[in-house]
Order: sequence, then C-alpha cells, then structure tokens
Amino acid sequence: MSRMIDAAGAAGLLREAQDVLIITHKNPDGDALGSGFALCAALRARGKRARVENEHKIHERYEYMYGPMSGDEDFEPRFVMAVDTASLELMGARFEPYEDRIDLCIDHHGTNTRYAASLCLDASAASCAEVVTRVLDELGAEITPYIADCLYTGVSTDTGCFRYSSTTASCHLLAARLFERGCDVQRLNKLLFETKSRERIRLEQAALSGLEFALGGRAAIISISQKLLGELNCDASEIEGITAIPRTIEGVEAGITFRELKNGNWKASLRTVTVDAAAVCAVFGGGGHIRAAGFESSDGLEETKRKLLAALEGVMGA
Amino acid sequence: MSRMIDAAGAAGLLREAQDVLIITHKNPDGDALGSGFALCAALRARGKRARVENEHKIHERYEYMYGPMSGDEDFEPRFVMAVDTASLELMGARFEPYEDRIDLCIDHHGTNTRYAASLCLDASAASCAEVVTRVLDELGAEITPYIADCLYTGVSTDTGCFRYSSTTASCHLLAARLFERGCDVQRLNKLLFETKSRERIRLEQAALSGLEFALGGRAAIISISQKLLGELNCDASEIEGITAIPRTIEGVEAGITFRELKNGNWKASLRTVTVDAAAVCAVFGGGGHIRAAGFESSDGLEETKRKLLAALEGVMGA
Repeated sequence: MSRMIDAAGAAGLLREAQDVLIITHKNPDGDALGSGFALCAALRARGKRARVENEHKIHERYEYMYGPMSGDEDFEPRFVMAVDTASLELMGARFEPYEDRIDLCIDHHGTNTRYAASLCLDASAASCAEVVTRVLDELGAEITPYIADCLYTGVSTDTGCFRYSSTTASCHLLAARLFERGCDVQRLNKLLFETKSRERIRLEQAALSGLEFALGGRAAIISISQKLLGELNCDASEIEGITAIPRTIEGVEAGITFRELKNGNWKASLRTVTVDAAAVCAVFGGGGHIRAAGFESSDGLEETKRKLLAALEGVMGA
Repeated sequence: MSRMIDAAGAAGLLREAQDVLIITHKNPDGDALGSGFALCAALRARGKRARVENEHKIHERYEYMYGPMSGDEDFEPRFVMAVDTASLELMGARFEPYEDRIDLCIDHHGTNTRYAASLCLDASAASCAEVVTRVLDELGAEITPYIADCLYTGVSTDTGCFRYSSTTASCHLLAARLFERGCDVQRLNKLLFETKSRERIRLEQAALSGLEFALGGRAAIISISQKLLGELNCDASEIEGITAIPRTIEGVEAGITFRELKNGNWKASLRTVTVDAAAVCAVFGGGGHIRAAGFESSDGLEETKRKLLAALEGVMGA
C-alpha cells in the first residue's frame, strides 16, 4: 500500500534520487511517453542519469520524444519509478524484477493499485502529464521546448485534442503555458491528430460504403473482411480509428465494427453512448471498458451480428 | 475605407448603439454565429434591442444559440454591424440595402475589405469570437453560461477543436476561462465534434470514393456536384467538415474541395500545410486565411481544377 504524497513530496524524492529508471505501461501512448520523457529530461538537466523504458517498441510517430533522450542510458537503476501506470500488470513481464522496489508512481488513474512505495495521484486530472507538470514545477525544472512538446503530447492525446469529456480548464491552461514555452504545436497537432495514411482513408471509404443501420437507427454497423484488408493493404493498426466512426452518427447508441481475423473468426468492437459495453461483450466471452468493449466469435458474421443485436435490443429496451 | 478601431473603440460604439442588427456571413459557421449571438446577448443584457441575421437558414445543431435569442426581434435597425464577415459579397444579396451603412465590423480575416465605417480587426486571432470577447470585456459585459457557450462554439469550431495551426495560447486561455464561466463543454464537444448526421456520413463516403490525387500526391481533391448533394439530400452546411479531409492525408500539402453551386459555378476550398492559401485563391478572385481559403469559378470543374493545380505547382515548386 503506497504512501500518498503530493507534487512537492514527489519532487522531494526526485531531488534526492540518482540513476532513475522511469517505467511506462505497455503499448505506451502519448500521455505515458510524454510524462516519462518530460521527467527524464528534467532529471538529466539536474545532472542525474535517467532513462525511460517500456515493454513494447515505441511507435515511430513519437521519435521527437525518444530521439533526443537516447544515449547515456547504460546504468543500473538506483531509483525506480512509474508514470501513467495503474498496476504492475500493465507494465508487462519484463519489469517483474522491479515489482517490489518501485519507489514512486506518478499517475492519474483512480484505479491505481498502489503498488509503489510512494504514490502521487490526481484522479481528477485528464492526463498524467498535468500531474507531472506540477512535480516539475515543485522541482523548479525549466520547461524547455522539448519538455513542452512532451507535456503537450500527454495532455492533448489523452483528451483527444481537448474534445473528450475529461477535458478541464486545467488542460487548456497547461496548453496555453506550453505554447508560450515553445511547444511546436503546429507540428505536433499535424502529426498526432491530422494525419491519416492513404490506406486508412481508403479503408474508411470502404467501411462507410458498407455501413448498415439496425434497431431503428440506434445501432450502426461496419464490417471489414480479410479480403477487404488485403485489397487495401491495411494492417490492423489502421482499424483502431475506424471503430470510433459508427458511434459518431446522429441517433446511434451502439456503434459496432466487425473485423474478420486471419483464423476466420470475427472480432466485434462495440462503442456505446449509455449502454454498458463491457457487460454486453461479457455475454459473448469478451470484455473491456464501460463504453468501449469487444469479443471474438467463431459463429460467422451474420450469426454474430444477429446475436449481438438481439443482446443490445434487450439492454436498450424499447 | 474603414476607420480602424480597437476593442475599446468598438465597445464605445456599442455602448451608444440602439436597435442593433448583427449580420454574419452567409452559410454561417460556428464562429460567425457564436460571435453574433454572444454580442446579441450582451447588448440585450444592457437593455438594448438586438438581433442576428444571415442570408441562410441556421443549421439546427446551433439551436442552443439561436433558440434563446429568438423573439424581441421586430425593430427597424438603427445600428448595423457585421461579425466574421470579410466582405459585403459574403453577406449575400439580402443585405444590399445596408451596404452603405454598416456602422461596425468585428472580424479576424486579414482579407477584410474595410466596407464598414469602423473596423475592429485582429487578423492574428484564430477566431472572431476572441475579438468579440475583448469587446465584451471592454463593455464590461458579464460572461454568462449562454455567452460562454457561444464564444466556446466560435473558438473551438474555427480551430477544429484546437487542432488547426491557427490555434494560439489565447485560444486555450479563452477556453479555460469559458469553462470557468459555465460553458457546457461536454455537450458542445459531443454536438460539434463527435456527431455526424447520416447525410454527412453518406457525403463523406461519396466524397472519399471520388478522391483524386495530383502533383505527385501533394494535392488531394474531392469534388461534390449538385447532383450528388441532391441524391444525398445534403445541405451546404454538411460540406463544412468535408473540406478538412483531403489535407489530413499523409504527404498531402494542398487539400482541395470543389463544390458545385446552384448557379452552376464551382466553389473551391483550399486547405494547405505550408502554402499561402489566401494568396493562391486571390489569384482567382477569392480570399480567406493563410491555410484555408477559397474562391468561386464559372470555368467549369475540369478547367478550374487545371488552373488551380497549375497555380499550386507554381508556388509549391519541385
């Protein structure tokens, strides 16, 4: 069970820390990486050794963050910390050796399992980057343009560029401050939010051309076969953004994307407005979050669709 | 030629003004309407009569703005002003009777033709709503939740929810302030950025299926004919979001949308990454902002396309 500390407390620990390993969750997103690399740069600016690690390869779109922090990484950690990581499981197997010696965790997930010796948590923050910013301020760290880029990446990606309902006034105040500290916002917004591959555009077009409605317009369905993916030369990562589309349609309460897997099964992704998506998908042996969940079925597309719509009709009522 | 005034000057005029007609450009977007209705509400709060008018019907998605300002509109204007409207042509024919008596214009378009007696212009502002906010502050107007909703609509829609390159620290500072003044940001973000009509989805699909590339992939082109709009039962306001699509494609430096008007002319919308869109469109008698501009052509689609691509090739170089 962690000792709960505030930003000043976290800064106090970091002031004393040497040879700092900063761990983020696996499949690191913009907020995990932005939080980690901002801290790494601030610690190095104080003459400390620090590096960021995670279980998976970092997407090359984040090269502007990991590039400048490569090198000088060959040290045996004496202080181990985690950012944006709610549980030890989310770190991945590679970090098992450190399980009992995480000195500090900085996070914004209310579900944090308190695995670190000290935990600096603000569950009301939309991004971990906002909590990190407070720690950096307590440390007296200079917000360089590089650190501004990292922190902006965190707050902007975790809020869908200030669109999600988690967005607060603090997010905007931080963004304004980071602009003034030299954050390269034009480049970052283009890179993070405004760029789609040609394959992705073709996939969107194909998916929309087969769009179906059901349950009187309250469900919208997109289906993507292996044949289509092959024709468009798309990989699975392109599909992630597609699954958000059906739910954005006016009047739709359940957005469904069916994707054929290489083994012939179909993977269903369910996005909802009010329905508990995780509960519905649990019926089919799947799971996920309350508004975004999924499952895999060997029943074939039509039968899987029929069953899922029947289940949704049951929960949504008349 | 307008007298150039600052926000305090505009507030001075409005303090004296009675029976105020606020005109926005035709096909009014979120920024034009947000600017207009925020001013309307502030003037009414001072006991004045005021109303917002424009050439076209306002999209029902903006009901939260025009709804509360309906009624009390039957008066003969004694003070006529325009917001977010760069030229008399953009107002539309209905306002010809007022051409020589526009007392005030509040705008953020560098291409403003200075048709009003007094012009309060900040071409560096990402939205007209930011300029209006300064005028409201000079007026000492209270930023009510309604006005906060209007101003947030303006700044968020004109920046693509803080994504476009026009976004500045001021945009974020304004957003933070509006959150604190009771702006219903969750509802507005869902409505403005997360909801698409079925017609819009069908239009996207049709537009993407006809997507063309030119200039070695550096230009992407979407064309929307009156026939297509008729088949899809779409109105012009649905096209607003479509024009952003071509530029989002990887490698594209100029995103072009051609739309056929009812008179058979074609309206070109140009979105760019580095090229001065306003300068390119000025060649064809149009105008706009540095990264988003447009023009109208009677040359037919193919000829208009050929000329625009030739002009772009000239500016973009090898």
